[in-house]
Amino acid sequence: MQPPQPPPPRVLLIGAGGTLGRAVAAELAPRHDVITAGRNSGDLRLDLRDADSIRAALAQAGPLDAVVCAAGNVHFAPLLQLSAADWSVGLEDKLMGQVRLAQLAAEYLRDGGSITLIGGILAEQPIRQGASASLVNGALEAFVRAAAIELPRGLRINLVSPNVFIESMPAYGPYFRGFDAIPVARAALAFSRSVEGAQTGQVYRVH
Amino acid sequence: MQPPQPPPPRVLLIGAGGTLGRAVAAELAPRHDVITAGRNSGDLRLDLRDADSIRAALAQAGPLDAVVCAAGNVHFAPLLQLSAADWSVGLEDKLMGQVRLAQLAAEYLRDGGSITLIGGILAEQPIRQGASASLVNGALEAFVRAAAIELPRGLRINLVSPNVFIESMPAYGPYFRGFDAIPVARAALAFSRSVEGAQTGQVYRVH
Repeated sequence: MQPPQPPPPRVLLIGAGGTLGRAVAAELAPRHDVITAGRNSGDLRLDLRDADSIRAALAQAGPLDAVVCAAGNVHFAPLLQLSAADWSVGLEDKLMGQVRLAQLAAEYLRDGGSITLIGGILAEQPIRQGASASLVNGALEAFVRAAAIELPRGLRINLVSPNVFIESMPAYGPYFRGFDAIPVARAALAFSRSVEGAQTGQVYRVH
Repeated sequence: MQPPQPPPPRVLLIGAGGTLGRAVAAELAPRHDVITAGRNSGDLRLDLRDADSIRAALAQAGPLDAVVCAAGNVHFAPLLQLSAADWSVGLEDKLMGQVRLAQLAAEYLRDGGSITLIGGILAEQPIRQGASASLVNGALEAFVRAAAIELPRGLRINLVSPNVFIESMPAYGPYFRGFDAIPVARAALAFSRSVEGAQTGQVYRVH
């Protein structure tokens, strides 16, 4: 007779409907109970720009062992054409949306739980029209290092910084000429490493 | 008879009244015409949070070969106590204040001119209560790398990322225990390197 199995860890996955989110769900689902959330799809509605919607989704999700984000918008435009409103897209959505997600997740996660955010290669390797994305991704790398040393209750936080995805090249190819695009499934592995590993304050570069 | 000397390069120095700004002024003054600007002191009034005040100062300064920033506020507080208003201090002042300074300086600088911004060691080495400073400094490092590849007319942009200053330890010592504080004059050297050198997209770490 087999001993009773513990229930699988419970993961809230934000942006589950996107290219990356679907790959992360596929990677985690065999070993986790994945609750999906998104602006327009998933088990729960969650908009990173709206702290109330984040709090509501965290409350509705029930006990959580991991919060994983695969969402976040940024505006692309030539440097000298980026307006205050253009900058705000990335600052409010991908950057501070994930920061407030991390702050709120710290209240809801079980002891020893993890937070995994999404950055990107533009933090290090800029492209034309990508200044806002670079700024946001660089901010997230430093934020994760800083947050890791202050999180309570053994909570962990890491960032996945992928290269452009092969699956996204039909849309983004003209911006990323010469980049060695990766299969999105490789980026999803880094999410597994963050959720199922033991490190904190790390930037997992999938370049 | 000596040939006529060309006039010295003209530098707009923001935050000239602070600990760092005074050291940068002392480093540059022997070889530059330094126009000082600040929120409350200097030749010109300039508030990084206010694009109109930046534009007015740039217009009043006359022809410029370099814009140098030694100013920028960030709020320090424990990670889970940082409110939206707390985050906004660093985002609006040190981060986007310097970004909009760079964007506007690109309109006013002479061909081949330079922009030098101020970051800090917390981008890499976090401290308690420093998550906002880390985020802002990390964002500035990535921004400078990205902006460098899009600036027109041979304009350059670099970031100085200093350790905590010996001169600031009476106030900041409790936050920076064990840090190998540097003389502010060493940080000022990095500003000279940016203004008088030829590199762009660099982060000059003075750690």
